[in-house]
Amino acid sequence: MKINYKKELEDAARKMILVHRPKTLIQLIVRMIVHKVKVRHAGILLFNQKLNSYILTVSRGRMGLKIPSGFIRIDPDNAMIRFFTNKHNYQYIDGGALVYSKIGKILKNRRSLSKHKDLKETLVALRNQMNLFEAVVCIPSYFQDKLLGILFLGKKISGRHFHRDELDFFIALAHDVAMAIRNAQLFEELQEQIERNKRMFLETTKALASTIDAKDHYTHGHTERVTQVSLAITKKLIITNRIDVDSAFLDDLNIAALLHDIGKIGVPENILNKKGELNDEERRKINEHPLIGAGIIEPIEDLKRAIDGVKYHHEHFDGTGYPEGLKGNRIPLIAAIIAVTDSYDAMTTNRPYRPALNKKEAVEEIRKFSGVQFHPLVVKALVELYEEGGL
Amino acid sequence: MKINYKKELEDAARKMILVHRPKTLIQLIVRMIVHKVKVRHAGILLFNQKLNSYILTVSRGRMGLKIPSGFIRIDPDNAMIRFFTNKHNYQYIDGGALVYSKIGKILKNRRSLSKHKDLKETLVALRNQMNLFEAVVCIPSYFQDKLLGILFLGKKISGRHFHRDELDFFIALAHDVAMAIRNAQLFEELQEQIERNKRMFLETTKALASTIDAKDHYTHGHTERVTQVSLAITKKLIITNRIDVDSAFLDDLNIAALLHDIGKIGVPENILNKKGELNDEERRKINEHPLIGAGIIEPIEDLKRAIDGVKYHHEHFDGTGYPEGLKGNRIPLIAAIIAVTDSYDAMTTNRPYRPALNKKEAVEEIRKFSGVQFHPLVVKALVELYEEGGL
Repeated sequence: MKINYKKELEDAARKMILVHRPKTLIQLIVRMIVHKVKVRHAGILLFNQKLNSYILTVSRGRMGLKIPSGFIRIDPDNAMIRFFTNKHNYQYIDGGALVYSKIGKILKNRRSLSKHKDLKETLVALRNQMNLFEAVVCIPSYFQDKLLGILFLGKKISGRHFHRDELDFFIALAHDVAMAIRNAQLFEELQEQIERNKRMFLETTKALASTIDAKDHYTHGHTERVTQVSLAITKKLIITNRIDVDSAFLDDLNIAALLHDIGKIGVPENILNKKGELNDEERRKINEHPLIGAGIIEPIEDLKRAIDGVKYHHEHFDGTGYPEGLKGNRIPLIAAIIAVTDSYDAMTTNRPYRPALNKKEAVEEIRKFSGVQFHPLVVKALVELYEEGGL
Repeated sequence: MKINYKKELEDAARKMILVHRPKTLIQLIVRMIVHKVKVRHAGILLFNQKLNSYILTVSRGRMGLKIPSGFIRIDPDNAMIRFFTNKHNYQYIDGGALVYSKIGKILKNRRSLSKHKDLKETLVALRNQMNLFEAVVCIPSYFQDKLLGILFLGKKISGRHFHRDELDFFIALAHDVAMAIRNAQLFEELQEQIERNKRMFLETTKALASTIDAKDHYTHGHTERVTQVSLAITKKLIITNRIDVDSAFLDDLNIAALLHDIGKIGVPENILNKKGELNDEERRKINEHPLIGAGIIEPIEDLKRAIDGVKYHHEHFDGTGYPEGLKGNRIPLIAAIIAVTDSYDAMTTNRPYRPALNKKEAVEEIRKFSGVQFHPLVVKALVELYEEGGL
């Protein structure tokens, strides 16, 4: 069966664009080559920046091939790499591919050998290497004069030589692969950067929030626990399809939970740490903390939803909460979640005016106020978490 | 001169991989087509997600072409778009290209027209559109069944028809372009996300740091000013090649400057705000703030260098500072910069024990202690900034 190379190439390119993990991409390509073009095996040597070496990905193909395990990782001073990184040797790579039989011809050409001292030695080493890999064709891929990788092909299963159009196909393919891999690497780097930034953001916010928390002697670890339980409840609500939120919701919730009590920094320490009951004026002062907290992060546009979480986490489902007396579903979900976990954590820790409840008692207390103080969906998820031992 | 299409394609692909801005990429491609293949003009209609329409990029080429200005943005229900998004019509696009003369042939085929009601109407509209654009070939590009764009070509300058191998070249090129554009769009999205995250991180840190600052009544706006001047000094040191730092240095400095006094949250308010002179015990308490501050963000691995900035911003160049008495270049540069700007800002604001110096006096005072308390390079940059009116 004759292969429609153009179609294969287009298919390959189409697949490549969808794959942004270099390793997956290479496996895909190698498998495709072995499968479609019916060679015994194929492999790709790909440069790995971190390791400063070339890593081998091989398809065993139909016939199998034993690569010595030490050759999975190849140094830049390996003969194969050295041959293809030396610009003098570009002249021997016909239209982009080096065929095994060509090596013998170069070795017979005394004039070539006399011009470059190392050429003979490199060629002999290269030939040995190709023998070891049972490779009959090598196709290098470059990116900005840097050798990105080498595609090598075993013999065809039919035993025949590779035709020029087949080689051209592989050269174009190797080029597409190099382009795709370069892109995939850049993507990985960007994704890693995003992850790193996100982690740094969350950890810094956590550190600063805990510092501010530390001013309130009775709430040690409160913020962290509220954040953990809030995330667990929300994951349950998402998994069970009881809420429909966008992908940034968990990030926003994370920040809102970390910062929900940040406004307490504006409340005098003697009120926060008072052992006796609070009078009306002191109570009023404490009740300002959601508004103060929202005010601190108000200028940050990207935190719009997190600000809602901070501002409304003391609203009650029946409209009797503060600061605005919002009712039912007018209370943003992000705040309704924190309201439940904030109360649950307060109940399960010792406070100046009463000892801690145990988990069971606290969950029972919260359930009692479902639909009154708390959002029923959120309460339900808390109860389920408790029953599964997730609290 | 005959064109080496394979080479052109490879060149184009090589260029594409370097360009991650879709708009630049399209201009590059269109210019290349007109230049190399010698067509009168070429254009690309590219889907824009945000606008939900196709945007036209045209090279006027050698002959010039007047596109009515209303046609720069084309709705998805435009005849050209409608034709290429309808799967029934894929059969008319020979191997990926629709040639103008083909439209007449389809219109004459009554069987085709009778099968699909809208076909005739769409084809007539399409032909009018191609006339308007003076286009003789249209090549659509798809990504996951979505029409990404249409490449269209004007007549060849020679007046001849396009050969099959020329069309194949353009089809492969259009495919590469689609792949590259899709990648470029993804890159843009990731870059935007990185920028957004970074902004959010800095703004949140700034908001929290100012909140903690607010506890110290005499330092209103101190953190923000120290951060601004530190960044300005560092930019000057980088531009004038007096320091050699990696690209993350400014980000780390930004965070370090924002957080340099965060440890003051661990110092009792009555000491921070005391109007009289401090006794030894109170002085000792205040001098703990760099260590307390570093301790707060210590667990955050990605902030390693910023932590140094917080920890050592009260070290003196001659080794008489605290907490460790580091000397000269053993003091991390990030801390040496903050040390200068911190002192400068303290001098230029009113303090309980003395009125503010003016800028000139403060810069003079800092210069006096260059090499004693302060790093000479940093002092030099501060002086230059002052002389340029940048303070």
